[in-house]
Amino acid sequence: MSQKDHIRHNPNDIPGLDWGLRKQIQDKLDNKAKPVGSLGKLESLAMRVAMIQRTLTPALTNPVMLTVAADHGITAEGVSACPVEITWQQVLNFLNGGGGIGLFSRLYGLDLWVVDAGVNFDFPDHPKLINAKVSKGSNNFLYEPAMSMEQCMKAFNNGCHIVADFHEQGTNIIGFGEMGIGNTTPASALMSILCGIPVAECVGPGAGLDGEGVSHKTRVIEQAISKQGISGSAFDILARYGGYEIATIAGGMMEAAARRMVILVDGFITTSAMLVAQAMNKRVLDYSIFCHVSNEQGHRKMLEYLQVDPLLSFDLRLGEGTGAAMAYPMLQGAVAVLSEMTSFDEAQVINTSHIRMEIPAND
Amino acid sequence: MSQKDHIRHNPNDIPGLDWGLRKQIQDKLDNKAKPVGSLGKLESLAMRVAMIQRTLTPALTNPVMLTVAADHGITAEGVSACPVEITWQQVLNFLNGGGGIGLFSRLYGLDLWVVDAGVNFDFPDHPKLINAKVSKGSNNFLYEPAMSMEQCMKAFNNGCHIVADFHEQGTNIIGFGEMGIGNTTPASALMSILCGIPVAECVGPGAGLDGEGVSHKTRVIEQAISKQGISGSAFDILARYGGYEIATIAGGMMEAAARRMVILVDGFITTSAMLVAQAMNKRVLDYSIFCHVSNEQGHRKMLEYLQVDPLLSFDLRLGEGTGAAMAYPMLQGAVAVLSEMTSFDEAQVINTSHIRMEIPAND
Repeated sequence: MSQKDHIRHNPNDIPGLDWGLRKQIQDKLDNKAKPVGSLGKLESLAMRVAMIQRTLTPALTNPVMLTVAADHGITAEGVSACPVEITWQQVLNFLNGGGGIGLFSRLYGLDLWVVDAGVNFDFPDHPKLINAKVSKGSNNFLYEPAMSMEQCMKAFNNGCHIVADFHEQGTNIIGFGEMGIGNTTPASALMSILCGIPVAECVGPGAGLDGEGVSHKTRVIEQAISKQGISGSAFDILARYGGYEIATIAGGMMEAAARRMVILVDGFITTSAMLVAQAMNKRVLDYSIFCHVSNEQGHRKMLEYLQVDPLLSFDLRLGEGTGAAMAYPMLQGAVAVLSEMTSFDEAQVINTSHIRMEIPAND
Repeated sequence: MSQKDHIRHNPNDIPGLDWGLRKQIQDKLDNKAKPVGSLGKLESLAMRVAMIQRTLTPALTNPVMLTVAADHGITAEGVSACPVEITWQQVLNFLNGGGGIGLFSRLYGLDLWVVDAGVNFDFPDHPKLINAKVSKGSNNFLYEPAMSMEQCMKAFNNGCHIVADFHEQGTNIIGFGEMGIGNTTPASALMSILCGIPVAECVGPGAGLDGEGVSHKTRVIEQAISKQGISGSAFDILARYGGYEIATIAGGMMEAAARRMVILVDGFITTSAMLVAQAMNKRVLDYSIFCHVSNEQGHRKMLEYLQVDPLLSFDLRLGEGTGAAMAYPMLQGAVAVLSEMTSFDEAQVINTSHIRMEIPAND
């Protein structure tokens, strides 16, 4: 079986942004009743969403938060400070509106869905739980690939199908979050290989490892890489070192971009899925908002590697999608600036759009 | 007339935070179903609001945005890129729900009130306009004090009374914003004197001055200071170089702190009012959330002087209260974490609150 036959997306699936609309969008922003450019990053966000949606009046519809959960065989090596049962326990907690993402989704008006991509637990049916379980957790990648190619493709394509369904129901913005005890370890391995950064710079304490724990985690990943190698495509690396939630999110991101949806990227794990996705097709980045920089040391370096500027810096290190949810009100603000804010004419305010900042304000 | 007889507040008016509650609040945060400390700055915010409100279940009630407007005699020196009529035009625009702050107040659920502290215009009555006009604009402080001591006190005390009224109607959180063409000039002058920073480092392009304009503005302030001096209290400096909106906001901030309300501080101008307020009583800072760092160069230095860490960094330079409004959803998130988020017990998730981060996550 060749990979090409089975992955839902190929690089031609993602359309380019409508760069031709850029001048019209800028003119509209510049004619809002405010000094030109004075809403800073909100204006850049408004520009991006308008180019994604190919309109001068962008709108965010049926916003969804997809929190994808899975277990990880690598936890057998003692790489996490937390017991593995927390993965399934948190899934149930989220479904009951609890945890960080249950709370923030409700507070910020995102429709939360939890995906079982590969959790070691038999969940009862729940209206907000999407069963996309490939197996009850990935393999221990110290000894064997985390997923077979078939398993990884299945998880990836599950993400595509789930996102496609939401899009068909009217969702044009989707946040990705995750839950999986141990998943900073696969994320660090993916980062090290895909970004070409030494493992030690990609590893952090996760949920709370001590210094010795971090060193051990680093050694485990280094050993695994020395055994399993770094050959092959990004997708091959994903299968060898990733996890079911990461593969499902990567697929979901590709589908979202192919459908011209706005993608809200959360923290370290979610960004590791983006590392895979953008290695498959850089255009996925055009549709992506990097919502925050987390307190897990590798995240800042991932963002630097991707040359992207995160919106928020709140020292979060919870995952689940919490940072993406917190950024959603900022996206709403950005879109409202372009679509709703009064122009000089509407406001009957003297037009100052000819006054341009000639020198950087914060030099 | 002595100043002491007339300013509504003295330093003993502001109560201390309830530091005794600190351990209980921390314990409650640590027992939420998440890794200890993993919500970063949101947890610090939750701690602060809980200590302000002296409760383990803080809540934000009847949030108000107060956008205070005034005109400035110093504009006669050509210190602003914008025509002065924009002050009154924007007041009307805000009252109609327009402009940045009209939009963001509506979007983020803040009750917007506009205060005429000293605008050169006769406004018709409007249900959301508070008439606190002391005169039709400050004097040109290149030649005389911006306000007499009586005028400055009147503006300051107006701010106190306005905030007191909101508090008595159930508001426990208040954002301050401003509108006043030319007001980066008084703000820069106040900053230079109160922080002891050379004028050139306090001056930026405001709404869009070019390099020559910035140099001119710098020279005007330097000249004014060389004539009028830097002697006296912070309140004296406020009267000599400030403006009606700045004085009204400073009074409002003191009243808000005295009533244990949460204060949302916006950008450069609003922070200049805080410079005055905290010089009168440092405790006002305990009640203050610095919502963002603006793109006006002096703002970052003001925040450094105050040794405070702003929440957002969006390159805003609009004022009006827009940055404070954008931070409000973050405050809601912080309060919800402490008051609503499920604990380990409630969530039936294995308690990991004994796992403490021993090494910094982002070293």
